[in-house]
Amino acid sequence: MKAIVISRFGGPEVLELRDVATPAPGRGEVRVSVRATAVNRADLLQRAGAYPAPADAPKDIPGLEFAGEIDAVGDGVTGLAVGDRVMGLCGGGAYAGAVVVPARTVVAIPASLSFAEAAAVPEAFITAWDAMVEQASLKAGETVLVHAVGSAVGLAALQICRAVGARPIGTARTADKLTRARAYGLDEDDGLLVPAGSFAAEVLRLTGERGADVVVELVGGAYVAEDLACVAERGRIILVGMMAGNRTELDLGRLLRKRAQLTGTMLRARPLEEKITAVQQLGRHVVPLLARGTVRPVVDRTFPLARAGEAHAYMASNASFGKIVLEV
Amino acid sequence: MKAIVISRFGGPEVLELRDVATPAPGRGEVRVSVRATAVNRADLLQRAGAYPAPADAPKDIPGLEFAGEIDAVGDGVTGLAVGDRVMGLCGGGAYAGAVVVPARTVVAIPASLSFAEAAAVPEAFITAWDAMVEQASLKAGETVLVHAVGSAVGLAALQICRAVGARPIGTARTADKLTRARAYGLDEDDGLLVPAGSFAAEVLRLTGERGADVVVELVGGAYVAEDLACVAERGRIILVGMMAGNRTELDLGRLLRKRAQLTGTMLRARPLEEKITAVQQLGRHVVPLLARGTVRPVVDRTFPLARAGEAHAYMASNASFGKIVLEV
Repeated sequence: MKAIVISRFGGPEVLELRDVATPAPGRGEVRVSVRATAVNRADLLQRAGAYPAPADAPKDIPGLEFAGEIDAVGDGVTGLAVGDRVMGLCGGGAYAGAVVVPARTVVAIPASLSFAEAAAVPEAFITAWDAMVEQASLKAGETVLVHAVGSAVGLAALQICRAVGARPIGTARTADKLTRARAYGLDEDDGLLVPAGSFAAEVLRLTGERGADVVVELVGGAYVAEDLACVAERGRIILVGMMAGNRTELDLGRLLRKRAQLTGTMLRARPLEEKITAVQQLGRHVVPLLARGTVRPVVDRTFPLARAGEAHAYMASNASFGKIVLEV
Repeated sequence: MKAIVISRFGGPEVLELRDVATPAPGRGEVRVSVRATAVNRADLLQRAGAYPAPADAPKDIPGLEFAGEIDAVGDGVTGLAVGDRVMGLCGGGAYAGAVVVPARTVVAIPASLSFAEAAAVPEAFITAWDAMVEQASLKAGETVLVHAVGSAVGLAALQICRAVGARPIGTARTADKLTRARAYGLDEDDGLLVPAGSFAAEVLRLTGERGADVVVELVGGAYVAEDLACVAERGRIILVGMMAGNRTELDLGRLLRKRAQLTGTMLRARPLEEKITAVQQLGRHVVPLLARGTVRPVVDRTFPLARAGEAHAYMASNASFGKIVLEV
């Protein structure tokens, strides 16, 4: 099969399309003929040598999510058959013609979604659902501050907020992304342009000084100290990404007085049983919303797999709105 | 009745014993003839003018916990009667001959405990139980890092760890407190003397590099950054106090990679329904341990109520081991 291989650590040019051996499914596994995969920031870090692959993943083929058709089924697998359209998570290896994964790490793709759209679902929607609902126990009537609302995770979070009866407030560093986010449920007044990273006063104003109940933190750095200034009593800040850096000074008095919570989360390094849980939660809670069109994956651009390097350069430009998909 | 009144904001000398009106219980309330109360750091802050009383508490009489006998019962109270020995939490006012509180904020004192011992129970044991078990979901087999292990909360946390099958590691700034903590379940090798606030390397060594699953953080400041360096994957740091300051620089990358959680907590400012829940959890889970002697309140010294100022000065010296009790 064809696969994109990290030939050495470096820039987008180190990604090379090569022929590699097609893997065979073992007991409890399925092989998925990949029709589309998508680019994640972790892939860029892995390519640069800053983020080694998990132990259960190929060392040199990136790709954390996929959509395709099952083309081989291992012993002991029930409920899945050759020809099924599925999407799922893996620890790596999805920039390829096929992946072999444990059967419980895939779920059926709703008939209304193309493979390219389905490839835009797993990381973004699992991350947003897991962070807000499973970890932060988001309930109807609460307010959620969604940073980087034009990112794939931000757009998934925004739509899930609406679907469960919560109010999203979104931030972005360009006005264009806020405008485009309105089509996915962001009220005009609840979109905050934050070119300089200052937003706490506005969030307090928008919430009648109460603050946000949940924060989906994708930027990191000094944003986290601002989050703490505008989170509600018993608010939950979920740190999903750190695009702006990994250090900040925190006012612990605020954390204590508000009885607030700051939780770090990531999908890629989770053990298998937790990845299965996350995918099964996607299937149970989010796939029905996708099937009805209540929430929609947002595909910014698609590239053919062979041009993965261009896709990486495009992600690094921060110009994308939603997901960058690779078609296989 | 007699009560200690904060005559003006200032040092221990501003506490004055005065005659004040004895309150009467309303519907759903009981009046407790206070036999003993205890000193908390919040009382010192309130006296200094740095921590106003909650809205539902007397403005100028400190005291967050009490032990005594019910001497009047309001309408609609069931299950409690005049003469019952009870202990409980309140938002203030316990440095007095009597307190009136909602009936569900008191629980029966085990027969084996004196009033002075019972007054040493509520804040320390509720804080430790709530932080470790209710909030951090502590389970048997886990390791807990208990800072300031010679404090009242530290000693309660230490004993609760043992009672639920967890392993405590304790820190203190004097060797004497570590030695005395052994009588309450601290293994000699698991007591860390940290005069300069550095402990992460030792905690990692003691846990085979795995780290502590739960941290009961009573010191604050730079301790929190150290906690993050030695907390286990999916570890939970509960910030209960900030004796060493309220600012720290955090490495968010550690929080994210470990999927760790930092939660602030406090009892004093909680709304009534949460105080009731906390007291009822004390009754259900900790009182049986107290009754069997599995856990024991630690009374360092008792002072008569009239000498509350001396008791405050003694707490400020940081020399105490366990609780400072005021007998009424």
